[in-house]
Amino acid sequence: MNMANWQTLIHEQLEKDRAQATSLLQEWVQSPSVQGEERSIQESIASRLAEMGLAVDLWVMEGEELLAHPYFVSPRTVFDSSPNVVGVWKGQGGGRSMVLNGHVDVVPAGDRAQWSDDPFSGKVVDGKLYGRGATDMKGGNLSSLLAIQVLQKLGVQLKGDVIFQSVVEEESGGAGTLATILRGYKADAALIPEPTNMKIFPKQQGSMWFRLTVKGRSAHGGTRYEGVSAIEKSLLVVQAVGKLEKERNDRLDDPLYEKLPIPIPINIGVIEGGKWPSSVADLVKLEGRMGVAPGEQMEDAKAEMEAALKQLVEIDPWFAEQPVELEWYGARWVPGAVAEDHPLMEILHNQFTAVTGSRAVVEASPWGTDGGLLTALADTPAIVVGPGVTQVAHYPNEYIELNDVFRCAEIFALTLIEWCGVEEESK
Amino acid sequence: MNMANWQTLIHEQLEKDRAQATSLLQEWVQSPSVQGEERSIQESIASRLAEMGLAVDLWVMEGEELLAHPYFVSPRTVFDSSPNVVGVWKGQGGGRSMVLNGHVDVVPAGDRAQWSDDPFSGKVVDGKLYGRGATDMKGGNLSSLLAIQVLQKLGVQLKGDVIFQSVVEEESGGAGTLATILRGYKADAALIPEPTNMKIFPKQQGSMWFRLTVKGRSAHGGTRYEGVSAIEKSLLVVQAVGKLEKERNDRLDDPLYEKLPIPIPINIGVIEGGKWPSSVADLVKLEGRMGVAPGEQMEDAKAEMEAALKQLVEIDPWFAEQPVELEWYGARWVPGAVAEDHPLMEILHNQFTAVTGSRAVVEASPWGTDGGLLTALADTPAIVVGPGVTQVAHYPNEYIELNDVFRCAEIFALTLIEWCGVEEESK
Repeated sequence: MNMANWQTLIHEQLEKDRAQATSLLQEWVQSPSVQGEERSIQESIASRLAEMGLAVDLWVMEGEELLAHPYFVSPRTVFDSSPNVVGVWKGQGGGRSMVLNGHVDVVPAGDRAQWSDDPFSGKVVDGKLYGRGATDMKGGNLSSLLAIQVLQKLGVQLKGDVIFQSVVEEESGGAGTLATILRGYKADAALIPEPTNMKIFPKQQGSMWFRLTVKGRSAHGGTRYEGVSAIEKSLLVVQAVGKLEKERNDRLDDPLYEKLPIPIPINIGVIEGGKWPSSVADLVKLEGRMGVAPGEQMEDAKAEMEAALKQLVEIDPWFAEQPVELEWYGARWVPGAVAEDHPLMEILHNQFTAVTGSRAVVEASPWGTDGGLLTALADTPAIVVGPGVTQVAHYPNEYIELNDVFRCAEIFALTLIEWCGVEEESK
Repeated sequence: MNMANWQTLIHEQLEKDRAQATSLLQEWVQSPSVQGEERSIQESIASRLAEMGLAVDLWVMEGEELLAHPYFVSPRTVFDSSPNVVGVWKGQGGGRSMVLNGHVDVVPAGDRAQWSDDPFSGKVVDGKLYGRGATDMKGGNLSSLLAIQVLQKLGVQLKGDVIFQSVVEEESGGAGTLATILRGYKADAALIPEPTNMKIFPKQQGSMWFRLTVKGRSAHGGTRYEGVSAIEKSLLVVQAVGKLEKERNDRLDDPLYEKLPIPIPINIGVIEGGKWPSSVADLVKLEGRMGVAPGEQMEDAKAEMEAALKQLVEIDPWFAEQPVELEWYGARWVPGAVAEDHPLMEILHNQFTAVTGSRAVVEASPWGTDGGLLTALADTPAIVVGPGVTQVAHYPNEYIELNDVFRCAEIFALTLIEWCGVEEESK
């Protein structure tokens, strides 16, 4: 059977399943799986995978190997209420395997007043399904699940394994996916349907959080010249960080970044210092996020920040006496990069064009995903492409276009056929 | 009797009273009269003034006239636990009157760990009396009280009235002294023994607190170019305020300010903005203190700040869209200025030289005092000079040199004789 025929069959089957699948996404969105509250949705997903005949693994991640791992980042160390789920659809052998990875943790709904409806309503209006997590990324997860389900319904037997991963902790830096890797799950490639507006992101920007402590010396505001203002010194630090950002971006020549004003930004998001209007501030804390280029080692990026801060003494000798303290803390996402001529890229492009009638846009993501971990640690090249709406992720009135969920499912199903291969008898 | 004879008598009497006076200062320091806790010391001072035969007025300030007064500044509006005290030593008539003003409120002791001893110990070691308030300004208040007492003991009858004022709320902007003025107390001149290291401050810097709100526009840190960083905009605001400070100080030509690097500083003491390292900060709050020159109208200083912030649009059009918000809040001290050829200056100089053997240093204070209110509102020219140690005011291990307390008392007593005049029979 040729791919065009597969496409017709898959499309028709997905149309038949549309109402039921939409209900399932509503159910998922109505389960408010914010950090620490993921057990309910994960158990329900595990049951469904079991019903579909997959080999299901639901477990609570723990242990020294995980917690002491250099890539482990989480605000917590106990995950009892947040199990991971993996379901393996075993292939017949002789084909390439594929991970379909997605996270079920969602960011908090935030200020209820900014939502037009209940943040976890799952309401469908004009083809859009609303609610926290609809776009980031339960809609994408549904595309993955439907891709498997539709192939099963059509009696397809793939040669390679398909490993469906429903992970936790992506929003905090990827401990869930790290745990799947440490548990041994890997494949020849991975797809992650994060909300990309159906753009293909073979490369993903990594990022790490940092904290800078800038010191001054206190004095009365009326004799402020007797002190050293940590606020004034912070201006120099912010400028130095800006200079480093420019240097790092100027030397990037990846054409994927051509359209981005600042491909790997360094954002200082928090400033806080001083305690009294009429005292000279003796301490300022700056917190920010440093973008890491695909292919760049995080340690190298760290070293550049360290060097930039050391150079401050050339601008102001005060920094010799009181060097800026640098701390890497909180969240961290490993950058990811898959070559644009990777065979999966060609397959994706072809199926995208077949399904949508147009050529996919290829970009590098401006944020980190679990793809970096899969690529860097599990030798599983990961490509990020999904139906969610980038602009509404993490925002009030988050929604997803249902049409895109089903188009993505269609593309993924066709991609699985091409990537994993199909047993002759099932054709 | 000539002044030299008076000096001998006064000096000898003060020596006799030294032990008792030192105990009294210990008692005062041991009464921790932080804001809201001044009743105990004020009642004890009122009793003492009554025993000395002064007409005593102890009252709790209140009422619309005070609370709605343009110079009223306080974090509170109810002062039940903080009465004011005034004692009038009525003169025989025909002489100039004098206010001796001092505050009993002390700033909090702060971190106990930074004190070598109990912050309210009143302990005397090597001629220094230790404790919060010893220098700022109970030691000075004792000098004033002793000046009256020693004259009484010597049987002196002054022609002019001496008005001893023991006020609250100086540390919060002067509501206590404002209340004495509204109650009708005024005089031909005033002395305020704030901690000046016995320097004479005919002029005092005023100050006002302000709050600036700088706006940005939020965005994800990975696409920070889609937002506008309120932190980056704040740098421009801090620079604009610095430029204004320079302009204001460059045009000051008062020789009293010659030795000060920045006579009327604008101090930005607090910065706070942004909530998340990987988000673009959409709001930054800056809080500071603007120095006001002696002789300058506070409204003029405010207008200059306003104008400087308006000029920001010339540097960055963003400020046309989102102007910086300016708010005057919290504490405020009116500047004060007495001409250097004021007759009280000459008397003070002469008595200072007579008592200490050297010429007094004349400067302008880098901070506000209640003198500004007395000069501006009560037509009572106020000069600030006192025995406290400027450097330890508001600091841990605050102390005062007892010798200076008694020298100041001697100078004040002699000054009262010259300023208020003495009845012939008492000579």
